[in-house]
Amino acid sequence: MMIVMKPSATPEEVQAVIARIESAGAKAHPSAGDEVTVIGAVGDREHIARLELEGHAGVDRVVPILKPYKLASAQLRDRSVFEIGGRRIGGEHFAMIAGPCTVESREQLLTSADAMLEAGATMFRGGAYKPRTSPYAFHGLGDDGLRLLAEAKERTGLPIVTELMDVRDIEPVIEVADVIQIGARNMQNYTLLTEVGRAGVPVLLKRGLSATLDELLNASEYILKEGNEKVMLCERGIRTFETAYRFTLDLTAIPVLKELTHLPIVVDPSHAAGRRALVEPLSLAAAAAGADGIIVEVHPDPDNAVCDGPQQLRVDEFAEYLRKVEQVAAIAGKVLSGVPA
Amino acid sequence: MMIVMKPSATPEEVQAVIARIESAGAKAHPSAGDEVTVIGAVGDREHIARLELEGHAGVDRVVPILKPYKLASAQLRDRSVFEIGGRRIGGEHFAMIAGPCTVESREQLLTSADAMLEAGATMFRGGAYKPRTSPYAFHGLGDDGLRLLAEAKERTGLPIVTELMDVRDIEPVIEVADVIQIGARNMQNYTLLTEVGRAGVPVLLKRGLSATLDELLNASEYILKEGNEKVMLCERGIRTFETAYRFTLDLTAIPVLKELTHLPIVVDPSHAAGRRALVEPLSLAAAAAGADGIIVEVHPDPDNAVCDGPQQLRVDEFAEYLRKVEQVAAIAGKVLSGVPA
Amino acid sequence: MMIVMKPSATPEEVQAVIARIESAGAKAHPSAGDEVTVIGAVGDREHIARLELEGHAGVDRVVPILKPYKLASAQLRDRSVFEIGGRRIGGEHFAMIAGPCTVESREQLLTSADAMLEAGATMFRGGAYKPRTSPYAFHGLGDDGLRLLAEAKERTGLPIVTELMDVRDIEPVIEVADVIQIGARNMQNYTLLTEVGRAGVPVLLKRGLSATLDELLNASEYILKEGNEKVMLCERGIRTFETAYRFTLDLTAIPVLKELTHLPIVVDPSHAAGRRALVEPLSLAAAAAGADGIIVEVHPDPDNAVCDGPQQLRVDEFAEYLRKVEQVAAIAGKVLSGVPA
Amino acid sequence: MMIVMKPSATPEEVQAVIARIESAGAKAHPSAGDEVTVIGAVGDREHIARLELEGHAGVDRVVPILKPYKLASAQLRDRSVFEIGGRRIGGEHFAMIAGPCTVESREQLLTSADAMLEAGATMFRGGAYKPRTSPYAFHGLGDDGLRLLAEAKERTGLPIVTELMDVRDIEPVIEVADVIQIGARNMQNYTLLTEVGRAGVPVLLKRGLSATLDELLNASEYILKEGNEKVMLCERGIRTFETAYRFTLDLTAIPVLKELTHLPIVVDPSHAAGRRALVEPLSLAAAAAGADGIIVEVHPDPDNAVCDGPQQLRVDEFAEYLRKVEQVAAIAGKVLSGVPA
Repeated sequence: MMIVMKPSATPEEVQAVIARIESAGAKAHPSAGDEVTVIGAVGDREHIARLELEGHAGVDRVVPILKPYKLASAQLRDRSVFEIGGRRIGGEHFAMIAGPCTVESREQLLTSADAMLEAGATMFRGGAYKPRTSPYAFHGLGDDGLRLLAEAKERTGLPIVTELMDVRDIEPVIEVADVIQIGARNMQNYTLLTEVGRAGVPVLLKRGLSATLDELLNASEYILKEGNEKVMLCERGIRTFETAYRFTLDLTAIPVLKELTHLPIVVDPSHAAGRRALVEPLSLAAAAAGADGIIVEVHPDPDNAVCDGPQQLRVDEFAEYLRKVEQVAAIAGKVLSGVPA
Repeated sequence: MMIVMKPSATPEEVQAVIARIESAGAKAHPSAGDEVTVIGAVGDREHIARLELEGHAGVDRVVPILKPYKLASAQLRDRSVFEIGGRRIGGEHFAMIAGPCTVESREQLLTSADAMLEAGATMFRGGAYKPRTSPYAFHGLGDDGLRLLAEAKERTGLPIVTELMDVRDIEPVIEVADVIQIGARNMQNYTLLTEVGRAGVPVLLKRGLSATLDELLNASEYILKEGNEKVMLCERGIRTFETAYRFTLDLTAIPVLKELTHLPIVVDPSHAAGRRALVEPLSLAAAAAGADGIIVEVHPDPDNAVCDGPQQLRVDEFAEYLRKVEQVAAIAGKVLSGVPA
Repeated sequence: MMIVMKPSATPEEVQAVIARIESAGAKAHPSAGDEVTVIGAVGDREHIARLELEGHAGVDRVVPILKPYKLASAQLRDRSVFEIGGRRIGGEHFAMIAGPCTVESREQLLTSADAMLEAGATMFRGGAYKPRTSPYAFHGLGDDGLRLLAEAKERTGLPIVTELMDVRDIEPVIEVADVIQIGARNMQNYTLLTEVGRAGVPVLLKRGLSATLDELLNASEYILKEGNEKVMLCERGIRTFETAYRFTLDLTAIPVLKELTHLPIVVDPSHAAGRRALVEPLSLAAAAAGADGIIVEVHPDPDNAVCDGPQQLRVDEFAEYLRKVEQVAAIAGKVLSGVPA
Repeated sequence: MMIVMKPSATPEEVQAVIARIESAGAKAHPSAGDEVTVIGAVGDREHIARLELEGHAGVDRVVPILKPYKLASAQLRDRSVFEIGGRRIGGEHFAMIAGPCTVESREQLLTSADAMLEAGATMFRGGAYKPRTSPYAFHGLGDDGLRLLAEAKERTGLPIVTELMDVRDIEPVIEVADVIQIGARNMQNYTLLTEVGRAGVPVLLKRGLSATLDELLNASEYILKEGNEKVMLCERGIRTFETAYRFTLDLTAIPVLKELTHLPIVVDPSHAAGRRALVEPLSLAAAAAGADGIIVEVHPDPDNAVCDGPQQLRVDEFAEYLRKVEQVAAIAGKVLSGVPA
């Protein structure tokens, strides 16, 4: 960490910063220039993290040198590749996670699951618990939804991805889920992150609407720190000033995250776009930018879907969509992940 | 709700939208213009909330006419005024909620509480559980912190404001807290909102970093819907492109929220600013803009604070700060809320 | 346009809005609901544009139904395809516009131009006038730069794309330029837009850092209105809260703009990214999302470039880069535009 | 400037950075830590500004130590206080600049000017040239507007503030204007900045919709560099994700700019808010936060104003508004600036 002092900083203020660094067990390396003094603070990451010098008297800026996360860092290890229900994730493997936004009925779910299996999807998604902005909206089928997901899994063999919102629901969810999804609104729900870390089930962690990449990686660190190494990060659109579409899908995040972390990066074009017509171009763009996978919403009858119908692809158009995504992913050096022979 | 169709919408697409509106139990009022058709949907708020027509085939835009929240709405009732530990909140009453960022020690806490009582603060704040971006940072004293807050309350009579992060901690927290604070990162943690709604204890709900006012009001609706009417909303800075300071305090939100809701509006200048020097000008600005209160961080020795030291006011400068805030609040028509005679 | 009145609007306020609509020569269609009154305003686009009812007493919101631009609108005509120096732009034609950030020297420029010709680029770019945040930075070679661009054009036959910043430089610039570039900072410099509209030379109009798509299309309307139909729009990254990279490239804008306008859409990955390593993934993503072209920076010796070196591709790596972009563009239905046989 | 190398940077990459620094005439001070190497670059501001090391191979981040502007810097001199038409600006002087959005007619303008004089405003504002998002909107009376402003000035003695958009209009504008306003959309129109710098007339420079404070100060540096020292900076709302109001007025910018620069800071609540009801609370907040002045729109008959009617205060309510602003400014240590005795 480097502390840049203000030009107006007094010698006492410089000394106070040095004293604070040393009292935390770190070493201070001051360097006085013509106009300003810069102080390097060298030491253990945890000590440095507690220094809290931002805004201290005489301090202009604090410049972190080391990233605050370590287990998520690209320097820790080579690119993570892991297995989920027999499918390989990460590295050259491209995951297509598809299924309806929410579990509505047995027929809707099993029709979708059968079609995803046949088209060659990697995993099957479906929400039993739905976070909704309004308390008056539909919040999911809950336990009944989980039971239907279990049936879809038994029938198709596809690994199941489903969201956990309430830490008290973790036991029934992990009975069914091969991957626990943590939604964007819960990205900094540290209680939940810690518990899914302890549960040891693979996690798909969505980026918050206005979370920086550093915050996303710090959130993943909460999970990794509990010993759970199977974490996928998911870009799903960020909040910007533009109102012509729901969220701004941040595809620059893909190559940048790949420099920062060894964890696989998945993209959710459905929630970012909010409209079916945008899902294919954004999916192709995500694959072209080097994503390790896509999580997309598909429905047998989107016009009558209970929730987010307009953004769900039609089941009968999915296979063709998947072929195009595969072609682009191939140019980016990836192969669709299916059941190992 | 009004549905603006695209100029290219076919008659079938218009009919499909009408059919969807009517299948939800609402009435459709189409109006065909020279270039586009606009369809009004009239009916029960809950039915309308489930229509999900945004992005439907042929639909250009969906324009909500009614707000999605009702219990939080300014139309429901006159401005809320309620009592917390004998102090009046809302209306012409201005609340000064002050205390350290986090409970560190008995001496630090009681020194602060004594000073706040003497200076005339309305309530006392202090965190026992601290949400932190990094899993390696200090996370609060937990139960020990709650015990010290209970001691401060007994000693000074000041009502206690403290944060709840994990729904499983609600019982010990409400034994001590007169007001439960829900932090910005948990603004859309619906599990937590529902439970504090049920607990019936007054709530200070902080706006998320990138939450719109509509989302903040929807979040408050989760609490109000459980029958808990004592909710204060708190503006604490939003995330923008500017990097010259930590967050951008959104004071326009104050007069706009006052048009939209009857709930009291409190401002947190400390977290927005991140630096002591900015806290006074932002506090005066908040009072001038019509805030119903301020929640501010104060510490007896901020240079040695465990967390957020640089943004905490010094205990011995607090009384003078409070006098200035009172003067500005008076011009905006408010009187500092103290113990009733 | 629809005017949504507040629930608290008085009959007088409703009447005042109606009177204002009618005084502007438009027709008012009020519709009183249970809770609010909505007033439709129907009439000529110019009259409606002058109504200025946003914020009027009793008005909650103003909802535009028609877009404020018309010549740029997708409804005006089929997708624009036009010719620049023998190269076709728009439709199924994919334009690769490449060259150095700034003209530095005869050798640097001609080496680059020769390489671009050989690799098969569609047009050649290079800046003679450079807008810079700091008045102390390098501002381009000016007229000397234009002369070198003219030499490169004569030598290679590649059409030239170069930026115009000052309306007083228009004559020398259009002597050389086949396409005038309007930079992001000048997107709402209406003087400049009107003059390049009158000049009749094709224009590449860059989106401002925080311009909405509606504002971008309105800016293009200033050019189109003067009778100049050859306008390309350019997405070059928007400003968001994220600081891990220079700008956030907004690829969702591509499919959305294609719904709104008939004009070709070009993407600038170099300025968005600010780093060479990100340029290829973002270029592939832009092509996959359906862009009509890319404008990219290339330099024979980027490590010693006068400006923006780190974001410029190396000349000797360009041909391979272009082949990959072509492959992805082909999946999106496009063919690289070269000299017609 | 400090260059933080990546942990993966090779010794060759470190050497290349050092070589680049030294080739620019600056000195390099490398410092190799356990995980990363940090290189200090010390030298002349102009040399450093041209280094362009951001994104260079092996470079993680570039951390500027010195600000890129110098004439605008708070370190250059004490707080600027200057005189405009006999009124003092800056320091303890508070400027109230008021008048209609646009010059519409002789009666409208003179009625407004008389009322502003009587109420005690410091200067009079009015637009003859209006930048508008749509080419079909009203663009001001032009030269006729300037003539009316000249008449208002002669009649009342109030200094005139009016906007310049086109560098070719500078001569007629400075015949009338005591202060040239540069609008937000032109904040980075460097041609215009340089010319108003040369003209020597005081300038009110508005912050761009998404300009950082550093960019605003760099823009002012373009004016100051030409020898024009009378520059006022103006905060007028920034673009954020929030759609409940037109712009987000950034009042944190006031105390932060006061730390960074000696130039006076003015706030425009009218354009930020877009609605009359918000203008008073935001004006009081601006004064409370330490602004050196306010520029506000006032109209004798806002309901029939040609442009921006809903955000203009009524002339007959202005005097009372001004008294409240004065009271709050007094608490912040300021006195309304009027004609010197």
